[in-house]
Amino acid sequence: MKSTQIRLASRPVAEPLDSDFEVATAELPEPEEGQVVLRTLHLSLDPYMRGRMSDAPSYAAPVGIGEVMVGQTVSEVVASRSERREVGDIVLAYTGWQSHAVVDARATRRLDPSAAPVSTALGVLGMPGFTAYGGLLAIGQPKAGETVVVAAAAGPVGSAVGQIAKAKGARAVGIAGGPEKCRLLLDEYGFDAAVDHRSPTLREDLAAATPDGIDVYFENVGGHVAAEVVRRFNTYARMPVCGLIAGYNGGEPMADFDRLPGFMRRVLTKSLTVRGFIQDEFVPTHWADFQREMSGWVADGTVRYREDVVDSLENAPEAFRGLLAGRNVGKLLVKVADPAGV
Amino acid sequence: MKSTQIRLASRPVAEPLDSDFEVATAELPEPEEGQVVLRTLHLSLDPYMRGRMSDAPSYAAPVGIGEVMVGQTVSEVVASRSERREVGDIVLAYTGWQSHAVVDARATRRLDPSAAPVSTALGVLGMPGFTAYGGLLAIGQPKAGETVVVAAAAGPVGSAVGQIAKAKGARAVGIAGGPEKCRLLLDEYGFDAAVDHRSPTLREDLAAATPDGIDVYFENVGGHVAAEVVRRFNTYARMPVCGLIAGYNGGEPMADFDRLPGFMRRVLTKSLTVRGFIQDEFVPTHWADFQREMSGWVADGTVRYREDVVDSLENAPEAFRGLLAGRNVGKLLVKVADPAGV
Repeated sequence: MKSTQIRLASRPVAEPLDSDFEVATAELPEPEEGQVVLRTLHLSLDPYMRGRMSDAPSYAAPVGIGEVMVGQTVSEVVASRSERREVGDIVLAYTGWQSHAVVDARATRRLDPSAAPVSTALGVLGMPGFTAYGGLLAIGQPKAGETVVVAAAAGPVGSAVGQIAKAKGARAVGIAGGPEKCRLLLDEYGFDAAVDHRSPTLREDLAAATPDGIDVYFENVGGHVAAEVVRRFNTYARMPVCGLIAGYNGGEPMADFDRLPGFMRRVLTKSLTVRGFIQDEFVPTHWADFQREMSGWVADGTVRYREDVVDSLENAPEAFRGLLAGRNVGKLLVKVADPAGV
Repeated sequence: MKSTQIRLASRPVAEPLDSDFEVATAELPEPEEGQVVLRTLHLSLDPYMRGRMSDAPSYAAPVGIGEVMVGQTVSEVVASRSERREVGDIVLAYTGWQSHAVVDARATRRLDPSAAPVSTALGVLGMPGFTAYGGLLAIGQPKAGETVVVAAAAGPVGSAVGQIAKAKGARAVGIAGGPEKCRLLLDEYGFDAAVDHRSPTLREDLAAATPDGIDVYFENVGGHVAAEVVRRFNTYARMPVCGLIAGYNGGEPMADFDRLPGFMRRVLTKSLTVRGFIQDEFVPTHWADFQREMSGWVADGTVRYREDVVDSLENAPEAFRGLLAGRNVGKLLVKVADPAGV
């Protein structure tokens, strides 16, 4: 069995270039007892992958040069040497940017195609949705009537944050790039207000959208957007920090002065809580509630989601660049293959 | 009744100058029903007062120009029109930098001179001690075997933080300025290690003192010390922020680049908790435990304290400058008068 793979060829300095990736074909080993052979249907592309391309210290080991790029997938079992999985099963796996893989059956989770479209296991009912749910509820703890602000609000995490905040009775304000995404926030996701971070009057726009100040800021962007939000924090505001995409490519222009002392003064004078997290932390405490609540919200239309599906594995690097630049709308997926049935 | 007062004459730009204060005499009003006349015995000098001299936004209103400088005092009741207080009672009050005051009896708390020296109500058993206790236990939550670091460790808050951490089974590492203070940390307060922040090898010294990394950093200093500590944070480390004295006079040289993005990256990759606080927040949840536990620790020698007593109200401005510059050791008090008995 052969697998088409996209491997890390070199570590990007800023935006990942085509030359940082290489396409190759590998001969997969025969499955051993307990293993399954998987054919990738959908590959999830997510901002965290930029961190894995770098060898700067982080919460996870980097992808090695010459190794397959990591990533979560929805895959079909095409051969099985485990009683846990049958040929034709659709599973969630972590096999990365490649067409096929051989893995332990225990490293897969079976999906029920009749419960929800299987691709949602990579989005609203998967890691991005849980990142929103866990971070917002465990750290942000929005109360009814409070104001929750989230940036990258048209993305899969941000749109879930806003809709969960609404479901919990809070006011949701989304920040996104451009009028089209801002309209989407209001019309599709039901945010109470939308602010365009490219606006020359961002400060005033944000003030108008948050007349009672800001109680929770779900931070997944960083940069100048965060700086404006922090100015409007109420006392005891909470700031779950789950990503800093603005800085991932080194693209956010540095301020020409040290903003840290001013930030810390505000932490002190407003009794702020700033808390970094990776969603894994909340699996033991929040995963069961997430599955139950979020499935219900998706089923009854309380929480909506969009998918941005790119065809063919070869297009993954270009799509990934677009993700980092904020060019896509909705959960970015690469459709690697159609289910075969077998 | 006349009161000698030290008033705010102008707002300091950096270090408070003599000309920022004025000494004046005021004729106090006759006490009304429910009021008492107080004679100040001890005035507490604390870093937060620098913030009140400024009109930058903060958690409390600034002292107005021409108003008496604020401050907590231990005072003697010299006349009473309240059945709550008798002449000769020693009380905790908030009458500021002056020799006498007329206040509502309900704004005072009676002290028991037989339980502990009354001056401790301004220090180890008062606001500084409670700042250490509340911030360390409510936010820092040190577990046995974890490493707690505190700067300004020879001061009244820092020395209490270290000793409470030890009482809770954690390893205590203190940072202070100069070999004399560092010796005090080890010999008097029982810290496990002491680091001199003036050392040219601060980074290496801190690494040697914290071989297992840092789990809690009680932040009351800011500046370059904090930057070094943050580098050694373990995953899930907690950082209660109760003060930033290094920046209070604008004296800490600014970094020549923006340190905020790097700080936020560390918050993210280490799942850090950064939490500002003012001790009032924890009064409802922690004051009773503090009084019980801390009184016991002080009585049995588990927690030690030092006082640095300056004679005469007129010397308060100079003593306050010394406090901001780190020149004093122990809780800084101005002895305004001896108890008269009446």
